[in-house]
Amino acid sequence: MTNVLFSGGDAAWAEYEAPLRAALSELPFTTAFSRDHAPADVDYIVFGGGERAITDFTPYTRAKAVLRLWAGVEDIVDNETLTIPLARMVGGGLDRGMVEWVTGHTLRHHLGMDAHIHGQDGVWRNDISPPLARKRPVTILGLGALGQACGDALVQLGFPVTGWSRSAKEIDGMNCLHGSDGLREALSTASILVLLLPLTDQTENTLDAKALSLLPGGAFVLNPGRGGLIDDDALLAALDAGRVAHATLDTFRTEPLPADHRYWSHRQVTVTPHIASTTRPDLAAEVIAENIRRGESGEPFLHLVDRDAGY
Amino acid sequence: MTNVLFSGGDAAWAEYEAPLRAALSELPFTTAFSRDHAPADVDYIVFGGGERAITDFTPYTRAKAVLRLWAGVEDIVDNETLTIPLARMVGGGLDRGMVEWVTGHTLRHHLGMDAHIHGQDGVWRNDISPPLARKRPVTILGLGALGQACGDALVQLGFPVTGWSRSAKEIDGMNCLHGSDGLREALSTASILVLLLPLTDQTENTLDAKALSLLPGGAFVLNPGRGGLIDDDALLAALDAGRVAHATLDTFRTEPLPADHRYWSHRQVTVTPHIASTTRPDLAAEVIAENIRRGESGEPFLHLVDRDAGY
Repeated sequence: MTNVLFSGGDAAWAEYEAPLRAALSELPFTTAFSRDHAPADVDYIVFGGGERAITDFTPYTRAKAVLRLWAGVEDIVDNETLTIPLARMVGGGLDRGMVEWVTGHTLRHHLGMDAHIHGQDGVWRNDISPPLARKRPVTILGLGALGQACGDALVQLGFPVTGWSRSAKEIDGMNCLHGSDGLREALSTASILVLLLPLTDQTENTLDAKALSLLPGGAFVLNPGRGGLIDDDALLAALDAGRVAHATLDTFRTEPLPADHRYWSHRQVTVTPHIASTTRPDLAAEVIAENIRRGESGEPFLHLVDRDAGY
Repeated sequence: MTNVLFSGGDAAWAEYEAPLRAALSELPFTTAFSRDHAPADVDYIVFGGGERAITDFTPYTRAKAVLRLWAGVEDIVDNETLTIPLARMVGGGLDRGMVEWVTGHTLRHHLGMDAHIHGQDGVWRNDISPPLARKRPVTILGLGALGQACGDALVQLGFPVTGWSRSAKEIDGMNCLHGSDGLREALSTASILVLLLPLTDQTENTLDAKALSLLPGGAFVLNPGRGGLIDDDALLAALDAGRVAHATLDTFRTEPLPADHRYWSHRQVTVTPHIASTTRPDLAAEVIAENIRRGESGEPFLHLVDRDAGY
């Protein structure tokens, strides 16, 4: 009997219990899936996080791995009591949802849709056409699975895409940059900037006043990555000054974003409530079950987190 | 000397004169490009249309072809004085602009963006995620160059795409239907419907009350094709009844759309002012020059209109 513990809040349990039971029942061995195993009996921990989640992993002496339900791990990666492998969610529907949100909002800003959505005033203004995508450079910071998938989709649509990552990468169709010189270049050409970096000590406040000052005038910022990547005061100042035309933000330092936050009321900001990329429970459950299968058969886990790098 | 006449309004002349002169100067023979050639001296007619355009082609006894600056030809195709070849614009940047508009507005409706763009009220509603694109069937009526290019882009993003055309076609990745039974099926599965048919006697009012009644409840309608494809009163009734969730319309029976038209004021309608796909003058000029080169060297013209079919 393999004991699988669910460590997470009531909402996540309600959403994931049935798909996880279904995926675990397909494994070639028997599992017991519960929120209430005694710590010393647990073989695998499915980790949602939130109010009921484990903070001290010391009593889980038999556990072989912690399997995160989503992509971000900043709330657990520095936990010193966690000494077993930590895997994060890759796939599970995350990538397709992210591609749709990033592509959709890139096209929205590219085409200037808001003027039409807000401005149905009976005046026929057909003397201004947007440039074609091929004249609208997009920069993506972060070239993990999500950044690459978004870059591929934007390249298909004809946008010139620059990607930046900490270490050098080569990706077909994209101009790939890395390092601090590369970051300056990537920012200086970004008509539309997409933040898809993991949140680590190194990436926090990547978009600070200095970085914002490198963007071309009238740039658009999309942040479906992590709230902490942005220095919020610096972004608001750049919006107020008109140097950044608009920011569409899906992630925030505090979530839910407080009702009195300036982002909600700022005319040049669109808040979306952390919906860009949600794990699809049925697909995510298959990824979790596959990692448990691998653990039981001695195969390497998928999507292991590099604890030093922080993602 | 090859005499090329520009037949069109002042605005089109201002936009196209320089690019056409540049493209014609690259030809391996000498051309004289003007708005004022005597009819009997004209070899090729570049046809914009509008207030100064030719209505009687009889005096143009030497002309070898009429070369349309854009895709639609409904204002000229039935002109009985036109007995020489008529070519329309294909390419010239038309396809990329159309792909961007159709993909952008498809994603806008798919992701429910308007609720975020309009509704920045400080309430964090993250319990509803849109389905993935793979669960959102899109139907495109019309599988010419523009319909195919849009279908390809939507397939790349994961949408299940059904295409309908008058005669049978096969296109990779799309479910292709034709004929009247095919039209009923294409409409009945269309969560998002895109109209890209040419306007002919056969296609006028394709989207009438009967066709609208076949759409699934809550469908979205995009019309970047031609205004006459829609029975406007029937569409407004379907919007009022909530059977159609929203219509985003770029083309109209009368353009500019009159300021008092109900489309401007209807909450479920977004008007864009015939900007989905504008010919890019520099690219279009190359297409025109290539057809003149072909005419002079005895090669077949590109993009000839079938006068009986009407497009």
